[in-house]
Amino acid sequence: MKNLDYAYLGPPGTFSEQAISAYCSRYGGNTKNFDSIRDIVEAVSRDKVDLGLLPLENSLEGSVNLSLDLIYQHSELKLYREIVLPIAHYLLAAPGVKKEDIEKIYSHPQAIAQSGEYLNENFKDVKIVYTESTAAAADEALKDPKRAVIGSIRLADIYELEILAENLQGDLPNSTRFVLAAKKDRDFSGREHLGENGRSEFKTSLICAPEVNEAGVLYSILGEFAKKGIDLTRIESRPTRQRLGEYLFYIDLKGSSEDPLLKEALSSVKAMSGYFRLLGSYPKTVIGN
Amino acid sequence: MKNLDYAYLGPPGTFSEQAISAYCSRYGGNTKNFDSIRDIVEAVSRDKVDLGLLPLENSLEGSVNLSLDLIYQHSELKLYREIVLPIAHYLLAAPGVKKEDIEKIYSHPQAIAQSGEYLNENFKDVKIVYTESTAAAADEALKDPKRAVIGSIRLADIYELEILAENLQGDLPNSTRFVLAAKKDRDFSGREHLGENGRSEFKTSLICAPEVNEAGVLYSILGEFAKKGIDLTRIESRPTRQRLGEYLFYIDLKGSSEDPLLKEALSSVKAMSGYFRLLGSYPKTVIGN
Repeated sequence: MKNLDYAYLGPPGTFSEQAISAYCSRYGGNTKNFDSIRDIVEAVSRDKVDLGLLPLENSLEGSVNLSLDLIYQHSELKLYREIVLPIAHYLLAAPGVKKEDIEKIYSHPQAIAQSGEYLNENFKDVKIVYTESTAAAADEALKDPKRAVIGSIRLADIYELEILAENLQGDLPNSTRFVLAAKKDRDFSGREHLGENGRSEFKTSLICAPEVNEAGVLYSILGEFAKKGIDLTRIESRPTRQRLGEYLFYIDLKGSSEDPLLKEALSSVKAMSGYFRLLGSYPKTVIGN
Repeated sequence: MKNLDYAYLGPPGTFSEQAISAYCSRYGGNTKNFDSIRDIVEAVSRDKVDLGLLPLENSLEGSVNLSLDLIYQHSELKLYREIVLPIAHYLLAAPGVKKEDIEKIYSHPQAIAQSGEYLNENFKDVKIVYTESTAAAADEALKDPKRAVIGSIRLADIYELEILAENLQGDLPNSTRFVLAAKKDRDFSGREHLGENGRSEFKTSLICAPEVNEAGVLYSILGEFAKKGIDLTRIESRPTRQRLGEYLFYIDLKGSSEDPLLKEALSSVKAMSGYFRLLGSYPKTVIGN
């Protein structure tokens, strides 16, 4: 069986690359890096790759809202798997650089934000420079011995950097949730790795918009799931951008759309929605630390 | 009456500054710029300013999740007003620069993402450079005649830039929602501008976490509002970061917590929540284009 091609947000050293590399080293597959989330979605749509890795929650690179909007706009896409990557931020620099010499720290805005307390306590007067990715930050940091970068442990390997401090994000658990998206007519059922966990661990994602925006409409929608004991794992309202005050709901549920109860609930919700799209039912892979 | 001091995410030329300047030119007040959302919250907490402007939805600068997390962490804060700013992105450059000469375009990652379709169609091969703010992008762009910047019309005024293209965000409506936060013991009731719209236009924000995470618990919470005909305007689940799978709900409702029906619903929801915090009831100001 031919190896699958996976698109991810590059360059090598990003958290996206860390996630897809770990995934492919477990299941096989080739990776190709792209400059933006938009390019990844286009590569999938135009059959240049088989699947694309999109950041969905608590992302460090790219805009999560952009992923949601692109999934909404590209109705040819379906979600095939969830990948959860624990995030740990490291302060890295070229070999020999000391903490007290650092004058500038480079990283992606989200990595900076998530390391905010550490930076406030330890580097209050250091200049923070924002970059497109943590990998681009490593490139910049290597140009001068008075610079450091915040990024993943993988960045240290790739750029041969030394660790000056670890777990800048503090003691709180922190992980990024990605999804693998592909054309909805693709059939990966022969691929063990796209469904080895059993349906019991599946999650189902959908987007819906009520026909009328009135008090209690979301309540009625959630009632269909509550009545059948189906757990919500996430809900988010997003403006439709067509008209102010009109909302789409992004809903994640525990279970597979093949489960009879969930199937019933989904068709009830579809019947009461002006817009309804099942994004897919999929298993989860958690990448080890 | 002494003018109030407002903290905003600077430097001048950001959308935050555009919002707070328009607000203060209508109602009076002094503005002070800060480098980060975290610094704004600290300035408010330590009484260095009266109110702080925080981006809450569809923000261009800073992380919206960070605003939510900081509001959650700082229980001494309360929300006093919502400010909505329509967003329009312009392609700007120093006088005399032509579109065809541009080799690099500078801006904040969110402004780039929101102008993605325009850039894809018109500047596919131009190098995109990410900056901390749209104002920082203008500084960079002015250094070389082959550079342009994406930002607000206000940026053009402040940096004396010319407009090369407008409404890069396309035809879709696009606005950013900010809130003014202050210490909860502050009393702005003597200030006409903090409540001139009448309570009918008020919005109420709350954070709650159910005592148990089980199917239907959000359904029960929303039921308290639905039964009384109270409209939800936004809902978002966020991980508590204490334990995976535990969620906080950020909920916005139409109406004031002084309204008897809403007051009743809030106390029912409080009774069924492990964590409950009323963030405030507040009027809205929409900044004209």
